[in-house]
This record gives sequence, structure tokens and C-alpha cells, in this order.
Amino acid sequence: MWTQDHELFDLAHVDTVTVGVFAWALTQPAPDVYDFTTLDAIVERAAAEGRDVCLATGTGAHPAWLARAHPEVTRVDFEGRRHRFGQRHNSCPSSPVFRRLSAELARRIAARYAANPAVVAWHVGNEYGGACYCELCTAAFRDWLRDKYRTLDRLNHAWCTMFWSHTFTGWDEIEAPSALTEHWRGPDHTAFQGITLDYLRFMSDAMLANFTDEKAAIRESDPDTPVTTNFMGMYRPLDYHRWAPHLDFASWDNYPPDDRSAARMALTHDLMRGLKDGQPFWLMEQTPSCTACRDVNPLKRPGINRLWSWQAVAHGADAVLYFQLRASRGASEKYHGAVIGHAGRADTRVFGEVAQLGAELSRLGGVSLGARTPARVALLFDWDSWWALEISDGPSRLVRYQQVVLAYHRALWDAGTDVDVVPVTADLSGYDVVVAPALHMVKGDLAQRLEMVAARGGSVVTTFLSGRVDEDDNAFLTDVPGPLGTLMGVRVDEWDAREADVVNPVRLSAGGEELEVASRLLFELVIPQGADVVGTYRADFYAGTAAVTRNTFGAGHGWYVAAGLEQDGVSWVMRQVLDRHGLVGPYADVADLETAVRVAPDGTRLLFLLNHAAVAVEVPACATGVDLLSEQQIERGQPLSLAPAEVMLIKCDGAPAAP
Amino acid sequence: MWTQDHELFDLAHVDTVTVGVFAWALTQPAPDVYDFTTLDAIVERAAAEGRDVCLATGTGAHPAWLARAHPEVTRVDFEGRRHRFGQRHNSCPSSPVFRRLSAELARRIAARYAANPAVVAWHVGNEYGGACYCELCTAAFRDWLRDKYRTLDRLNHAWCTMFWSHTFTGWDEIEAPSALTEHWRGPDHTAFQGITLDYLRFMSDAMLANFTDEKAAIRESDPDTPVTTNFMGMYRPLDYHRWAPHLDFASWDNYPPDDRSAARMALTHDLMRGLKDGQPFWLMEQTPSCTACRDVNPLKRPGINRLWSWQAVAHGADAVLYFQLRASRGASEKYHGAVIGHAGRADTRVFGEVAQLGAELSRLGGVSLGARTPARVALLFDWDSWWALEISDGPSRLVRYQQVVLAYHRALWDAGTDVDVVPVTADLSGYDVVVAPALHMVKGDLAQRLEMVAARGGSVVTTFLSGRVDEDDNAFLTDVPGPLGTLMGVRVDEWDAREADVVNPVRLSAGGEELEVASRLLFELVIPQGADVVGTYRADFYAGTAAVTRNTFGAGHGWYVAAGLEQDGVSWVMRQVLDRHGLVGPYADVADLETAVRVAPDGTRLLFLLNHAAVAVEVPACATGVDLLSEQQIERGQPLSLAPAEVMLIKCDGAPAAP
Amino acid sequence: MWTQDHELFDLAHVDTVTVGVFAWALTQPAPDVYDFTTLDAIVERAAAEGRDVCLATGTGAHPAWLARAHPEVTRVDFEGRRHRFGQRHNSCPSSPVFRRLSAELARRIAARYAANPAVVAWHVGNEYGGACYCELCTAAFRDWLRDKYRTLDRLNHAWCTMFWSHTFTGWDEIEAPSALTEHWRGPDHTAFQGITLDYLRFMSDAMLANFTDEKAAIRESDPDTPVTTNFMGMYRPLDYHRWAPHLDFASWDNYPPDDRSAARMALTHDLMRGLKDGQPFWLMEQTPSCTACRDVNPLKRPGINRLWSWQAVAHGADAVLYFQLRASRGASEKYHGAVIGHAGRADTRVFGEVAQLGAELSRLGGVSLGARTPARVALLFDWDSWWALEISDGPSRLVRYQQVVLAYHRALWDAGTDVDVVPVTADLSGYDVVVAPALHMVKGDLAQRLEMVAARGGSVVTTFLSGRVDEDDNAFLTDVPGPLGTLMGVRVDEWDAREADVVNPVRLSAGGEELEVASRLLFELVIPQGADVVGTYRADFYAGTAAVTRNTFGAGHGWYVAAGLEQDGVSWVMRQVLDRHGLVGPYADVADLETAVRVAPDGTRLLFLLNHAAVAVEVPACATGVDLLSEQQIERGQPLSLAPAEVMLIKCDGAPAAP
Repeated sequence: MWTQDHELFDLAHVDTVTVGVFAWALTQPAPDVYDFTTLDAIVERAAAEGRDVCLATGTGAHPAWLARAHPEVTRVDFEGRRHRFGQRHNSCPSSPVFRRLSAELARRIAARYAANPAVVAWHVGNEYGGACYCELCTAAFRDWLRDKYRTLDRLNHAWCTMFWSHTFTGWDEIEAPSALTEHWRGPDHTAFQGITLDYLRFMSDAMLANFTDEKAAIRESDPDTPVTTNFMGMYRPLDYHRWAPHLDFASWDNYPPDDRSAARMALTHDLMRGLKDGQPFWLMEQTPSCTACRDVNPLKRPGINRLWSWQAVAHGADAVLYFQLRASRGASEKYHGAVIGHAGRADTRVFGEVAQLGAELSRLGGVSLGARTPARVALLFDWDSWWALEISDGPSRLVRYQQVVLAYHRALWDAGTDVDVVPVTADLSGYDVVVAPALHMVKGDLAQRLEMVAARGGSVVTTFLSGRVDEDDNAFLTDVPGPLGTLMGVRVDEWDAREADVVNPVRLSAGGEELEVASRLLFELVIPQGADVVGTYRADFYAGTAAVTRNTFGAGHGWYVAAGLEQDGVSWVMRQVLDRHGLVGPYADVADLETAVRVAPDGTRLLFLLNHAAVAVEVPACATGVDLLSEQQIERGQPLSLAPAEVMLIKCDGAPAAP
Repeated sequence: MWTQDHELFDLAHVDTVTVGVFAWALTQPAPDVYDFTTLDAIVERAAAEGRDVCLATGTGAHPAWLARAHPEVTRVDFEGRRHRFGQRHNSCPSSPVFRRLSAELARRIAARYAANPAVVAWHVGNEYGGACYCELCTAAFRDWLRDKYRTLDRLNHAWCTMFWSHTFTGWDEIEAPSALTEHWRGPDHTAFQGITLDYLRFMSDAMLANFTDEKAAIRESDPDTPVTTNFMGMYRPLDYHRWAPHLDFASWDNYPPDDRSAARMALTHDLMRGLKDGQPFWLMEQTPSCTACRDVNPLKRPGINRLWSWQAVAHGADAVLYFQLRASRGASEKYHGAVIGHAGRADTRVFGEVAQLGAELSRLGGVSLGARTPARVALLFDWDSWWALEISDGPSRLVRYQQVVLAYHRALWDAGTDVDVVPVTADLSGYDVVVAPALHMVKGDLAQRLEMVAARGGSVVTTFLSGRVDEDDNAFLTDVPGPLGTLMGVRVDEWDAREADVVNPVRLSAGGEELEVASRLLFELVIPQGADVVGTYRADFYAGTAAVTRNTFGAGHGWYVAAGLEQDGVSWVMRQVLDRHGLVGPYADVADLETAVRVAPDGTRLLFLLNHAAVAVEVPACATGVDLLSEQQIERGQPLSLAPAEVMLIKCDGAPAAP
Repeated sequence: MWTQDHELFDLAHVDTVTVGVFAWALTQPAPDVYDFTTLDAIVERAAAEGRDVCLATGTGAHPAWLARAHPEVTRVDFEGRRHRFGQRHNSCPSSPVFRRLSAELARRIAARYAANPAVVAWHVGNEYGGACYCELCTAAFRDWLRDKYRTLDRLNHAWCTMFWSHTFTGWDEIEAPSALTEHWRGPDHTAFQGITLDYLRFMSDAMLANFTDEKAAIRESDPDTPVTTNFMGMYRPLDYHRWAPHLDFASWDNYPPDDRSAARMALTHDLMRGLKDGQPFWLMEQTPSCTACRDVNPLKRPGINRLWSWQAVAHGADAVLYFQLRASRGASEKYHGAVIGHAGRADTRVFGEVAQLGAELSRLGGVSLGARTPARVALLFDWDSWWALEISDGPSRLVRYQQVVLAYHRALWDAGTDVDVVPVTADLSGYDVVVAPALHMVKGDLAQRLEMVAARGGSVVTTFLSGRVDEDDNAFLTDVPGPLGTLMGVRVDEWDAREADVVNPVRLSAGGEELEVASRLLFELVIPQGADVVGTYRADFYAGTAAVTRNTFGAGHGWYVAAGLEQDGVSWVMRQVLDRHGLVGPYADVADLETAVRVAPDGTRLLFLLNHAAVAVEVPACATGVDLLSEQQIERGQPLSLAPAEVMLIKCDGAPAAP
């Protein structure tokens, strides 16, 4: 079968393979036995065939013998139940035996294969995630807390334990927050936000330690080959911003929830690119056809695999890989899409499309490798705010962090604006516009840095439920929006939350433009403290009061969106902001025609046009250059026609602009 | 901050403060250390400022050190899981160490503060509730059963254990009924209703013992100051009728599910007033603005806090308090509404409305204190029937006790009739009308007492699913409705249950009035045994048969409503009944204009008018007197206009009557 | 009360009673005490009254003392929780003490009553089902696996453990697949289908061993009286085809989900009759009026109990019994319908209808006893395919085995065709048509046997998701549909799954007939390999491609239905097939008029006509003979009128045929 695999890989221009991701039981079949026979054969064959290898340490699932010998290596779940051997991503991150053996396996694999030039990257673990609530993790949590707070007084103050008689008088009184302690109705409902927030941070750090354990072991024999692990995009349990410095490059697995996810994927790519300051990433996994893990697993339509792969490249991917190359014979992923199906055919539609894309990418060579996105807009993405917002009791469980962020990013995406999605600690000095949706928690000097953006003429946009809590999730004992109040020029005393079917229309008005849009879920009542009113509520007892404001701050603006505007309202606001800075893209009014720009290390400017619409679009060219896919010359202004799912990649002679 | 608090309390006319509710960790920071320094300061300051103090024992949540030292003090949940330290209301009621230490704390607090004249009430525990299923509770349950049944034969008979091979041959074979024993699909699905019912009774008693433990400890040093705990209205787990004799006055926390709950709140106030035979109660908690614990937490509209506070007074409250006075800095209630927000402002809308109401209440002085409601209608509310109905397998899980009771109470409320909501053991001799919705269980001499009501000319109303089981939840081995059959003059052999979307219209007809209304969920097939048919089904194979009957019994009537009538049908039936007794209020046809009467100890008759409608209403005055709020003289028959949320409190010269 | 019972039994023509089903606590009140006093009295009285007795061993629920003395006798649930005493069907099937004591009880009961001629059948246990996940079961599972696979290599291959590092290196590393090991989101979501599938098989076998334990004990003293247990129709946890050889006759309890279940009940009766190769079965339980265990328990309409009882007879029942004869006084079935209600009346509608049916059955005598159904159509029903399909990850959780089977059976039922529902191991040589819906797993020589059906001129019909996996649930490494490909003449490379609201219309066309129907949920993309295209998709990128095909194979056909056709599409396909073989019944176009034929041992041909419609139907008679119910002579062609719920039982002079 390997021979057939490699023949088909050649047909499909597969030049890089990830191997060994779940090979622990294979490579260490017993406590004292390491056996690399099969892995040797796989790597040697791949190398011999001229393929690059992304070599996994294989620690994403432990072997059965380990769970039998050390029951504490399995996890205890949120419900307090000790699991036994099964599934994957099943190791307690605090288990000493897991930490020792996983590092040892990584050490031996690195020692064995580091010298093989085919190995171009190390793949540690797999899709880190989940959580453990065992005694070992509880003990480790206490240590983590001791490191952080030093004294119980500081911890009690941070967690506001005076509330509900929670004052801790000994470190060993502290429990992991779970269904058996602080939680009810699941992980988002906690009696003590501070405890839960710290446990989320701790668990993210604990798994990061598993990663760095293995990376350190690899570095013992290989000082250079880059090390990564495959992230999962907007994955709530892990704060990838805390992880990113420890990876040599970012990589992620793109399994969008449905086939209407173009904007969502764009955001996620931007987030992944932002992890390491704009450095290109790998798309480590995607299905060529369908998933298996969903209740309903639709098929990718013709052209979609190609379109989405190019979208990844457009947003910063330097590599595009698949899961899976050949369909598993059995178990839970046997129906997950594969480049090569169970019958081993090369004449399927799916294989054909993979091969066509492979050929294109081969033909393009390295033109986009290492290219950067020249964004002048930053969107702040903050795991702490995500966590704090969604574990909060009140004002509304219906307000979801991702939905708010998606709406603001989508407004930018629709406008054809390149965006960097960055952590709150990022350097903001290079951006014209900074958007901070639902920035619930404001930490450190962020408020001052946002003020500096506005002071020098930039625009800062934030929304309802921003500026509410400090880094311990305690309320600022000031007017809302806390440290953002000066920049925003508003004060919020009250807020109203309503069921999803309640609409309060908002009348937006600026520069002669007017629009009435719907808002839902959350309605803050704004008392302007110097800000201009741009939008007003039209209903309820607060009809006529401010729903959207713009405050002049230095040479720039602070925008405050107090209402849960629907997409058209968000888009209207963002267009006002982008217009001021001349950042609206050339096809902002063409629905689902995505544009993205990358600038290669040699200065080459690449313009990607991606038609996500179900219909063909016709637009005038916004740049002069060569479409590297069709190899046709394009003159600015000439009519371009893109069929559904069509892609153009124009190597531009100058900067693109509205034609 | 305390100084600011008291300045603001003065502005808001806050004259009473509840303190120390969750102070256990503060007042007993270690097993052998009691420290009242902070509580002393709080109480002394409050007293010095001239405020009354409702002083809590603070045992609603145990301290972390206690859970660490005595793991058995935490609860085991319905799923059989031992909890660890967290949340509140977290103590096993059967735990000896909890019982000892909670009583000891109450003892010490009472000893320390009993002499302080500022202390006007003792607040024991907090919102007792939940349940525990641990070994200690199981053992205590067995003891409770032994006390109740004396012999296993009696227990086996009561529980009908012959069914499904359940005969118990030793007391220690009995388990607490939980997800691990008799239950599936949650607490309402049990294989043995009798076991589950007794456990509900036992658990209510076990928590009551926690209350009486502390009360007894308080009484050691304070023989007089009244002792209460804050109830939660229609709260299923605790039989407040069994608790009420042990409280010196009732108090409760009013957090209605939504802002359309005026009728529901009226019922709940009536229920709380009925706990102690009509004696006034305290409204111990309400939010001035919004809750935080719901998925969606809407804001109270302008005027609503005042309207609802006056509604409490109208139904028997002698005190109106808030939770919370100042917003918590952190944890799960930091977004719960507060009189004083995080910024400490007095110029917010919410503070302003609280202060306005405070001023009104101050101005009124004690005019309504100790006043009683002169109701001639009693509605029976019975925890045993609630439990029995809702843990029953068949005929319909969709029939919910509260919904049935709410519909009948609402009919009375809409009609402007004062109602006492009383236990089945109440003296019924003073009532013209007794309504017993869904009285599933009929105990003791209740049937005879109801017959006496009718015999002397009164009206008794009951419904489907009444008179089905005895106090052990065993079916009466007679025709349905069991002991109510003679009074009702009907027999029921069959009953049909249908999904919520199935309607059977019922044609109602009495005294020349006709109406066709919808009925749903449950349809009993009635064979009249002397009763007159007032309503008939219009559909299905039982079309034309009786759905509502009225039986002449002595000088009065027994009404049987066999169908799940919707509100308009229930209201029609109740209007027939009230009309006969001349009990329809003056504004029965004015939607959402509530009236309530209280008679002060000096005979002063107070008429409350509360406009719950979203629009202004205009009505002729039904009484002559003085509106104590506007200080205006009112002449009977003069037009009155009440804006939305407006309240009038008329000190009447005579009894109100239709103008 | 027994006296009244027997008087009423006489009135109702109750000639057989099942007794002792949950009598363990009664017959063995302590470890060393057996007491048959009460059971003696019951059996003696029944015998004296001339009634037959179906005598239960009473082991469907263990006594409380047993659970107390041997906690391991209770089950551990899927969530890993050890249960304590409660409910019923509560014994761990692997518990040695349960196995020993249940067999001993059966042994003693058989020894005591075997000689009593009133005992006509033994009823072992009750509604076997559920599952256990305890240590004892885990150990027994390992033994079962060792017996099956002999070596771990074979097991690892069968379970495809190379996936996700699951290779087992010791038998004791294997865990029962549960929420604590391989599962998430419940029993259908498993990481390893092979493990879960084998546990389902093991658990079915383990409970079967409980049955055979008791049967063997009975056989020690009674070599002849037939032994059964009451099945539950389409009950997923137990593979009744593996059980059937061990029962002397099949019996089952018919509690359909609603009153529109006529077709479903027909399928289930056919399945039960097919368990023992067409041998008649008993309808062991049905309610005369209503259930109690559902959320909503509607009443059986007038005539329905009779109609459904006759339907059972029409499909092969030789006995029709009720649960319950007298209503339980208490516990969870006190509101379950009963022949005799709590009041003990004979003048209720329900009792009257039971008595009417009893009189009819008495009058008919033994005319239908032992009769067989002369079906020429077989429908394959396969627990392995059911399990494999529903525990599969991908392609769609919305495709449910029962729904697919129901649709194909319903098409046959609507067409008035007698159908045998048989296991995949059945002898197919006698059938003209074999229908295999969703035959996910193809085992042994089944594909060849299906080919033989077609080769000799028969028609074989299968659908999407058939022929996918081998008996270990591993994918066939060939084109889909695996071993069925040759017979079907198609190849499937891709499949699309969509949410339930997505419709792809299918244009069907054959023999000049055309129809456009809806398909949903699953859409396989068919590449014909010789088959004719009968139906084509009308939408999506695969519009115009094959959705239904018919392949000529030998003298017959293989039909492949690749799309999730709605009922009208399935019916159209099946009518094409039946037409070819002349198997469409006389009233195929009369909605809800069911026909069924049984041929008695003496050759008498009985035609049942059952009107399930809510309206009367008029049809010409399709046979000449005598309606045994009305005792009227029928001439073929004469008009017959059947009121709603009416039944005719025509003893035919010849074979029925379209009039």
C-alpha cells in the first residue's frame, strides 16, 4: 500500500507529509521498549521519495499499557470522574509519569531523526486541549497560585473571597473549580469568576509545559529545525497568545463549522498569523472533502477545497496540508475525508481536485513564501476577555465573545481591508485603526496605548461590555467603561439585556449618511461625557439616548458602540471609521469577493482575489500585473470575471486601488 | 467607603440593613477562633447612624477550612457525587459538625448582639434549599422513617413495595432516592413515588432542624427579638407550611422570572402572608434594577421598582429591603443590581428611584404596619400535592402544579378579589369560596371540611387530578375524585392526556351566559353523579360529555373542572363563582389594574390601586378617602387616572365598592 | 379482592394470566428462606378458576436484601456510577451471586409448579435490557473477547487499534467502552466502533446467559412446558436474533409511541414472528387504555384496543394478554391502564371493550392457532447493522436505522404485501423479493446469497450506507457498496450529508411512469457500473446523476437507492419491484386499510382486514368466504364497508386477489 500511496502522492504533488502523530503505542510498545522499526521505514521511504517530513512526537494519545500501569495518567473530567484508558488527548498534563515519558519519547525521536534532512519540522503532541481536574492538577494549581500571588491575602483580594464566605486560610483549601465545587450548569457557570479564570490560565499553562517539555527534549539533539504544534483557531481553552512565543512557527487545523464560513476562516487565519507577529503559518490540517465528527458532515463542493486552500495562503499560510492522506480502515475517522479513499483510486473527483491544486502550488513555487500582510488595521483578540465575558453571571449569557468579534472582523473583511488580529500586548503604534470588540478585561497599560493611537490621529473602536473588569475579573470601582472612559468620552450607569427576539432599532447618522438598523441582546444606556452621539435608540424608555458615540481625542477618535448592533449596523460604523483613513478596499461593495494582499520578502506585492459567492462576479481590475494562476496579464480597469469559487493571484506592478 | 454608604443610605431613606449573611469565614476564621471585630464595627456604625439591623447568623455558606477539615460537611448531590468546597448553601443538613458549629455561631452572635437595640430581627441561614443524598442523610432518613412508620410492615404498605419486588426487610436496606437508586431522567422520575415523597418531606424537615438549631441557640440569650429566614416564594423543595410555625415572622426574596409577573408576584405574596395566618411579612430581598443569575437579565423599567415594592406592601409586607445595597466588587453577583453601583454615585436613575420610594415610605410612617387582608376567598396551596403531582408517572408530565394554581389565582386577581393562599390544614370556616386547584392528595379531614364550606352555602372549586391519592401517594381504591366525589357529584373513570398543541374546545354555559374556550393537556371524562353540567367537550370521542360541573351540596356548590381550561375558561368559571358571593372587585374588567385592601389594627381601611399596564388607565373612584401618596382627597365616582406603573394608596372612609 | 378479580376475569373472558413477574422479594424474603405461600394461593386459585397460568420466575428485579448483602449485584451505569438498590432490571448480568440465586429461584419454582397442568408457559425475567459497566462485566468482556479473538493481534486488527495509539498489549488493558473511556456525548459517540460494537454483542450475550441459566434450571424438572421471556419489539440493546433459538416461543410487549403507529406495529409483529422462522408468538403485554411512563399518556380511542389486538393476531400472535389486569395501588405504574381500575368496576368503557374482545376471541376458538404467514417478500433486519450505523462517526447522525427500515416496510405494508422480517442468516431461497435497507454491515456469505436471489429472477433492494463495513466494522477496502457492488452494478466514491431541512428532489422514471419526490439527509453520488438509472438528483452540483438504479443480474434485479428518499419515493420504488412479481395487494391504494393473511395448519386461509383510518372505507371484497367476526357470508366483489377501527376476519374459500 505504501507504494501506491507514494505514486498517488506524486500525482497529487504532495511534497510534505506529517507522520507519527498517534504512534506512541507503536514506538514504545512497553515501558522499557522503544521500537522505531516502522517509523524508520516510513520516514526513510518518504525521504527516498523526495518528500519533506513533518515528524510528530506522537504523544497526543498515550498507550494502553501506560494507563494500566499508571491510572493517574488519565484525566479527571469536569464532573469529577476519573477516566480510564480510551480516546485521545487523554493525558493529565500534571502527571509526572506522562511528563517524563512524553519528553523521553520526544528526546529519542529527535535524537534518531534530527540528522535526517527530510525532517523539516517537529510536530509536538496534537491539538492540545480539554482539561483535567484531578488531585495532581489541583496540587499543581495551588503551586501555580502560590507563584502568582505569594500570599493568601493577595489571592483572597484577587478572588474577592469575602463574598459568600470564601476566604481561604490555607493553600490546601483551594479546589479545582468544577461541577463538584464552584460550578453549576457547566463550565461557564461559576460562583467565583476569579477562581475559574485562574484555572483556565493554569490549565493553558500546564499544557504549554507539556509542549515545552518535549521541545526542550528535542532541542537536546536538534538546535534548529522548527518546532510547532497544531492549533485549532479560535479555541477557547488555550490562550494561544501565551503559547505562541514557544512555537517556532504557528500551525493550525481548519475545520470550519459549515460552508458559509469564509469570513470566519479569514478571521481565524488572521488570528493565527497574528500569533507570531505576522510571521507565516502552516495550515496543518484540512479535509479534502468532508469531516466525520459532526452530526451532519456535508461534502465540500467542487472548487471549494482549492478556494479555501488559496484563502489560507492569501492570509499568510506558507504550507497547506491535509488530514487525512489515506482513509483509515476503521474506528471513528474512517469516514473522514481523505485524499486517497478506501478503494485507493486516483480517478475520484476529490483526488482530482487535490492534484489540480497541488499542480498549481508547485507551479507557483516559492513566490509567496515568507510574505507579510501590510495591514493598517488591528483587531484585538483577548483570551482573558473571552473567558471573563463568558463565565460572567450577568448581564447576558447570549452575548458570545466570538460572535461580537466575528461581526467586527466581518465588517472589515466585507470592506476589503487587510487586518491583523493581535493580542492586547501587541505594539499598536503602526496602526491607523484599532478595533477592540467586547474588551471586557483591560489590563496593564492598554488603555494608555489605545489613547496614544487616537492621540496621534488614529481611530479606536470598542463596544458594550468593554472596560468592565481588571485582570482579576473584579469590577473597576469607577464609571463604566473604566479605564476606557476618558478615550470614549462616555459614562454607562445601566444596561439592559433582552431575549434574542427583542429588537431595539438604532438610528445611525454621520456626515449626512443615515441608517436605521436593528440591535439585540444588550443595550447599554450611555451618558455622553463629551462624545458626539452617532446613533440613538429608537425604542423603550431609553429611546432617543445614545447607542453609538464618537469622541474626539487628540487628533483622532474613540468610538463606543453601546448596542448589540446587527451586522449591517456594525458594518456601517466600521465603514465610517475606515473611510476616514482611506482603508476601504476596491471591492467593498461586491459581496463575498475577498481580497487580500501579501508582500513577499523581495517586495513583490501579491493580490489575492477569491470569489466565495455562489455566482460569478464581474469587476474592473484594481491593479496591473500578472495573474500567476492563469498566467494572464491584467491591466488595471480591465473587466475581470470570476466564476464561483474562482481565485486570482495577481503579482502587482503597484499597490492595488479602487479602479 | 462605609461613610459614603451611610451618606447614601440617608439620601435613600434606608432605615434597616441586613448584615452578616455570608460572614462565617469572617466571624470564625479558624476552628477555635471567633473574631467579631469587623461585624462589631458594621453593627456599631449602623446603630450609630440610627439604622435598624437585621442581623444574620451567617451560616448560609460554610468556610473553606471547615470543608477541608470535615469533608462530610459538604453535600452529595442527586447524582451521588460528593462535592468539595465551593458555592454556598453547601452544607449537609445532617452533618453533626455543621449542626454543632452553625448553632454555636448563632449562639455567640446572639449572645454578643442581643442587647443591642438596633438589632430588630435575626436572620438565620439564607435561602435554605437544595438537597443532600449522603450517607449521613440516608441514615437520618432511616431514623425519620422509623419515627414515622414504627414498623417495616407499615412502611412497606405505605410505599406499596410489593410492586417491583421492593419489600424492605431491614431498615438499612433503604436508600435515599436518587439517580443511583430509584430515579431516572432526574428528580421527578421515580420508580417509587412514596419513597421520593418521604425523602422530600424528610429533607425539608432536616433543613428545618438546621433553622431550629440556630433559633434555639439564639433564644438562649434573646427571648424576644423575632427570628426569621428568607424564603423564596413558590419554592418546591421546602414545605414552608411545615416551617412557618417555627418562624416569628415570614420573609421572602422576590426575584420574578420576568417583568410580566405581576399576577404571579401577587400569588406569592399571598402565599407568604398565608404562612402565618395572615400576619404581615417582610420583603427581605429584591433587586433595585436587575438580576445577574439569569441567562438574560433585563433592567427594571422606570417606576417598576416602586410599583412592585408597593405591591408587596399591598399584599401584606411590613418591610421592603433590597439586595444588594452596594454592588459586590467581584464574583458571581458583581453585576446584580445594587442601590449603590461600583462607582458609588447618587445621581443614577436607579438610586434616584430608590430614594423616591424611600421618601414615600418614610412619609407614610406606620400606617400600614400590622394591617391584615380581609379576604373571603381561600386558595389551597399544598406542597404534598405539588410533589405528588409532579413526581407522578402519568397521566401527563406537562401538567405543572404551579401553572394550574397560577391560572386559578390569576382569575381571582383579575377579578379584583382579595385572596388568602393557605395550607390544607387552615381553618376554612370563615371563607365564602375555597379553591383547590390540582389537589392531587387529600389528607385527613380535608374532604369533610370542604363539604362543610359548601354545606353552609359556600362554593368549593377543584379540578382535574384532584382527590387521587392519600397521604402516602397511594390511589384511593374508589371512584375518582376519591373523598371529593360526594361534594363534587361526579365520577371519573378515564382521562386523556395530549401534547400541548392539541386543543379540545369546551362550551361553557351558565345563567344564560355562554362561552367557548380552549382546553389542553388533560381531559378527564366525567360521568355526573348528580352534578349539573356547566361545560362540555366539543371534540374527540367524548364530545358532548361533561368538562365542567357544578354540584349542589347543602346550601352551596361543588365545582369540578375536569378539563385543562386555558385562562379565559378558568376566569369564566371563577367569575360565576365570585358573582354568586358578590366578590367581584370594582375594576374586574380593567386589565392589569390591581386592587388590594388591607385593614390596619386601628380599623383603617387601605385601598391600593396599582397600574401594571403599559398604558394609563382611567376609572371612576370606587371609594372616598385620601390618597396617601399624592395627599389628594378622592370622592367616590370621581375619575381617577393612573399612569403606567402608578400607585394610589387610598385611606378609605368606608368599604370600596363598584362605583 | 381476588374473588372480585376472578369474577371480572370471567366477564372479560380472561383465560390466561401471567403471574409472579416481580415476586422475588415475596418468594425469597431472605437469603435462606423461600416462601411460596402467596404464590401457591394465586396459582391454585387461577387453576381452580380454570385459567391458564404463564408463570414467571420473578427475577426481573432483585430484592433489597440482596443488594444490601452483595452491593456488586447492582449495576454500574454508562457514566461509571455504581447504583444502589432501586428500580427494576437492576441486576448486573455478570454478578455470580445474581446468576446463582436467579437460577436457584427458577429451579425451585419450576420444581414446585411444573406438575400443575394450569402452567402453560414459563416467563423468565422481564423485559431484559439496559447494560452494566462494572468490573465484573469488564472481566467477563475480556473473557468473551479472548474466546472470540484468541490473540491480541487478531483483536488489534479487528478493532483497528493502530489508530490513535490504541494497540493493546495485555488483555487486562481493555476497558468496557463507556463515558469514562471511549465515549463522549453518550452511547452512540465512540472513538472505537469495534470496541463498542463488541461490547454491545457481549452485553446481549451476557443477558442471554441469564436467561439460559434460568431455562436450564427449569428444564431440570420440566422438560416440556415452553419457556419464553417478553421482548420489546425493535429494542436496540439486545440482538433478539441471537436470543431467539433459546426461546421456545417468542413473546413481546407492545407499547407503541403513539396512536399513529399501525405500520410500525405491523413491522414489529413481523419482526417478532421472524425470530423463530415464522412460528406464532404471544403478545405478552399491551395496555387496555393508556400508559403511564410517557411524558404524555393519551387514552386509546374506542375500538383501538380491539383493532390492535386483532392486528397482532393477523401478524402471527396466538395469544393476546394485557398489562395490567388490576391497577396497582401505588408506585410508578398506578396510572398505567388496567382491565380493572382502582374502583374495581365492570361498567367502565375500558372494561367493556376488553370483555367484548374477549368474547370474540372465545367464539373464534382456535381457528388461527399455529397459522403461518405465506410471505414472498423478506425484509432483512440486522442488529449489527443497526449498531454499526448508529455508532458511526459520519456521514450523518440524522440517518437512523429504524427510520430507514420503517420506510421500506411501510411501503410494503401500504401495498398490502405480506412480509417476513428476517435475520441476515435466514434462508432466502423461498422469496421473490428481498429488501435490505441500510444494510451497513455485510457478513459471511450474505452477498452471494443475495446474488442468488437475483440470479434466479428475484429482486434485491438495498440503499445508501449499505455494504460499507465487515463484521468488525472496518471499511471494505474496495469501492462502495463493497460486496454488494457486483449485484448492484454501481460504485460510490462520495456522499453528501445535509441538515434535515435540505431537500434534493429526485426524478424517478420507469416503464413510462414518472414522479418527482424529495430526498433528504444523505445523498450518495453514484457512478453506474452497468446499472440502469431509474432516478436522478435534480439539484446541487450532482444534479442529473444517479440517485436510484436498477441492475440486471441474472434473471433478476439489484436495486440501489442512493438517496434518502421520503416515503412517497420509497413507496414508488417498492411498487415497481412488487409489480414485477405480482405482489401488490388488493387494497394497495386504500389508505390505512391493512390486509394480512395467515394459513392455518389445516390449510384454512384467513384474511384479516383492519381499518386503521379515521374514516369508514368502502371496498369490493377480494375474497369469497365467511367473516368469522360478523358470521356473514362474503362474495368476492361485493361491497364491504368498514367503519373506523373495524376488523373483518374472512375465512377464505380461495386465495384473495384484486377484485
